[in-house]
Amino acid sequence: MKNITNKHVGLYTDFYELSMAQGFYFAGKKEEQVVFDYFYRTNPFEGGFLVFAGLADLLHALKEFRYSQSELDYLAQTGLSPEFITYLENFRFKGKVWSVREGEILFPHEPIVRVEGNIIEAQLVETLLLNILNFESLIATKAFRIKLAAKGKPFADFGLRRAHSAGGIHASRATVIGGASSTSNVLAGFVYDIPVSGTMAHSWVQSFDSELEAFRAYAKFNPHTTILLVDTYDTLNSGIPNAITIAKEMAANGLSLKGVRLDSGDLAYLSKKARAKLDCAGLKEVQIIASNQLNENVVKSLDEQGAKIDGFGIGTELVTGKPDSALDGVYKLAECNGIPRMKISENIEKLTLPGKKKLYRFYDEEDKFYRDGILLDNETPESCGYIVNPAFPEKKSYIGELKSEELQKLVFDNGNILAEALNPMEIHQYLLRRAEQLPDEHKRFIMPHIYKVGISPGVLELRNQLIAKYDKK
Amino acid sequence: MKNITNKHVGLYTDFYELSMAQGFYFAGKKEEQVVFDYFYRTNPFEGGFLVFAGLADLLHALKEFRYSQSELDYLAQTGLSPEFITYLENFRFKGKVWSVREGEILFPHEPIVRVEGNIIEAQLVETLLLNILNFESLIATKAFRIKLAAKGKPFADFGLRRAHSAGGIHASRATVIGGASSTSNVLAGFVYDIPVSGTMAHSWVQSFDSELEAFRAYAKFNPHTTILLVDTYDTLNSGIPNAITIAKEMAANGLSLKGVRLDSGDLAYLSKKARAKLDCAGLKEVQIIASNQLNENVVKSLDEQGAKIDGFGIGTELVTGKPDSALDGVYKLAECNGIPRMKISENIEKLTLPGKKKLYRFYDEEDKFYRDGILLDNETPESCGYIVNPAFPEKKSYIGELKSEELQKLVFDNGNILAEALNPMEIHQYLLRRAEQLPDEHKRFIMPHIYKVGISPGVLELRNQLIAKYDKK
Repeated sequence: MKNITNKHVGLYTDFYELSMAQGFYFAGKKEEQVVFDYFYRTNPFEGGFLVFAGLADLLHALKEFRYSQSELDYLAQTGLSPEFITYLENFRFKGKVWSVREGEILFPHEPIVRVEGNIIEAQLVETLLLNILNFESLIATKAFRIKLAAKGKPFADFGLRRAHSAGGIHASRATVIGGASSTSNVLAGFVYDIPVSGTMAHSWVQSFDSELEAFRAYAKFNPHTTILLVDTYDTLNSGIPNAITIAKEMAANGLSLKGVRLDSGDLAYLSKKARAKLDCAGLKEVQIIASNQLNENVVKSLDEQGAKIDGFGIGTELVTGKPDSALDGVYKLAECNGIPRMKISENIEKLTLPGKKKLYRFYDEEDKFYRDGILLDNETPESCGYIVNPAFPEKKSYIGELKSEELQKLVFDNGNILAEALNPMEIHQYLLRRAEQLPDEHKRFIMPHIYKVGISPGVLELRNQLIAKYDKK
Repeated sequence: MKNITNKHVGLYTDFYELSMAQGFYFAGKKEEQVVFDYFYRTNPFEGGFLVFAGLADLLHALKEFRYSQSELDYLAQTGLSPEFITYLENFRFKGKVWSVREGEILFPHEPIVRVEGNIIEAQLVETLLLNILNFESLIATKAFRIKLAAKGKPFADFGLRRAHSAGGIHASRATVIGGASSTSNVLAGFVYDIPVSGTMAHSWVQSFDSELEAFRAYAKFNPHTTILLVDTYDTLNSGIPNAITIAKEMAANGLSLKGVRLDSGDLAYLSKKARAKLDCAGLKEVQIIASNQLNENVVKSLDEQGAKIDGFGIGTELVTGKPDSALDGVYKLAECNGIPRMKISENIEKLTLPGKKKLYRFYDEEDKFYRDGILLDNETPESCGYIVNPAFPEKKSYIGELKSEELQKLVFDNGNILAEALNPMEIHQYLLRRAEQLPDEHKRFIMPHIYKVGISPGVLELRNQLIAKYDKK
């Protein structure tokens, strides 16, 4: 992974992080030790899970986090005090970060990343952390949903032209974590060492006097990766017949046409007609690739209609996470100088879980995911024996004797990245192994079964104590 | 505007742009002169218009467009030929760009940007152009819709934590073009010289032993910009009473509390109750700021319910353009070596308009927008006399004697930016002037009136000729 996107990370923040940091500084709180949790509240796309992504980009940004002189000069103009700006001159993020692995499958309200440090450093990285993790996790989840819908057929990320400007670089990384087999985004290939691919645009075809001439020229200059775009004028009456002509010419030279791409019209209908024509011409090995406004639901529907499609190019909805467009991940204070803290709020679903916590996964006898549990740092599954449903604490799950795994590891300490550096394709392999362990009913698109995440007796007691304390006030 | 985001622009592209460029090179087409049009097909958010944005970022990227040695080394690994990579070593974009101004109000199918150059340079910039213009235009449009809904009340961009990672920098620029009065995004302030603002997070309140103590400390260190977040524990029973206490303490020192912020619960209900309590305490000048999952429809609804809100902080939906998440802008070949080109496609709405074209706006006697017209380069309103509805060519609009304006200007030539450098706030002022000229029925959120965009007799004839030509084949 090349480090090209981490310029100015210290400024890539909400202004209130800086004004609060200054406030902590002058309030004599700068050495206070805090714990923040990153978690989300709602599964994206009305689905049953989240695929976590973005950690490697975040850790690189934390490592680079500092303020240059020109940045400090700018901050002085925003009204921050000279003394605090002097403090920022030598500022580095020296906190500890605990996190689950990228590619992990997660569920609402679970502590995913835990940041421990002094209150200034832990506060200053909030926006950056949310900005990176919320987006990449959203897109990795979207990509994996498409992978599930495609049932083993490959799909490529074609989304850069509709990605949110510079955000496209991280979008493409996340699509590969989620399951895209390649990306059209050359910069993502350069930075993250992931495969790039591409076919041709309509402009190629239009720039020649005839479609046949355009196809012939493309085959000549790309003899081993020829995929012909067949819808510039008329898919079935011009594009496919011309592609067949070229395939035969290529065969005469010992080459073979790799595929054709459909990019408009009804993809189910056209793919069946195109397949029949290609087969009839003895071109069974020529693949049909489909693109044009695809998402997991369209891919699933095409499969159900028996469309003859061998692979997909997917753009807009994949890289923008439409229709959700954002994951609702938040970063909340859980402890300050050893004292558990909690946000109570007007909305019951915005309650936070106080205290320094750990996330456990419990497995059933078939090694499938059975429950996740949120425990206090000083608890163990054995010491608890059970976890409870946070909304109905009378409902208990006994987990003391189940196979368990603590999901968060120390990934950043004293300015150094401790997490293993993995290629996005390796992260996808981990996701595939985890998805095998996730029961199918959580993968359903319509009304997926809700995976059960419990809290320990210790977390429950702490939560109730703090609510009672504020009630009294 | 500081140039920080244009690293690696030559790689920020779909791979097929490079493989096609290589094909053009070897097909002996590299000197062919082409014209591409950037246009979009559907107004975002089911609205009546688009606010165009992103041009300045695009032009800076075009100026920086080149390949470094490490990039060329990478491209060699992707399978591009050594000869073509040598060609890329000295590649610069030297084409001409014609564009409408940023902040212009536009409509579907209008040529917005026209790129003229050799086929390689014009093709290589496609993805970059779409990536920047589609996104910033989407967000500027969203922001302006919020401005319309807010009826003069200010709103700040709070979206960075939910923006699409590095895309947040461009998102914030576009929010200010569309009407945000400030942004929380410090890097956007640094780069684009736009105002930054911020209040406090729940973590500030939680990090103190009591809410009152937290408020008092904040007021002490931010005496002139104190906006207190009042929903950490209980808005009406704790947050507002504590804010009143602080306001009185500040008044005793000759200071005044600027405002309170509501961030959860029912904002209409809470704002009215909070206003009454503040007024009752003699604090009529203390503002109420609202945030939490806002968009133009919620802002409009709050206004209709008589919510007592003085300003808004708007995040997720503003910076991600939810629910659309992307503008469907495309970049299509219109002419090659002087010969008009057209894409016919399977979907009638994907037809393109052939030939080198100009965009005119016609005004009525009150100087309001009356019609827009797409003319060939060798036509004038006077020479045409009328334009026709592209779907029903028998419907004519006579425009020969109306006041008219050609909207595209030459903004980039021979490697130099010719467009005037404007701050996003200045661009917003232009938008406001144009919005005054846009009849109100096009600003409606529900079923807005469709603004009429016609084509000239020359464009119509060319389109019909080319369709007939491909029909014959």
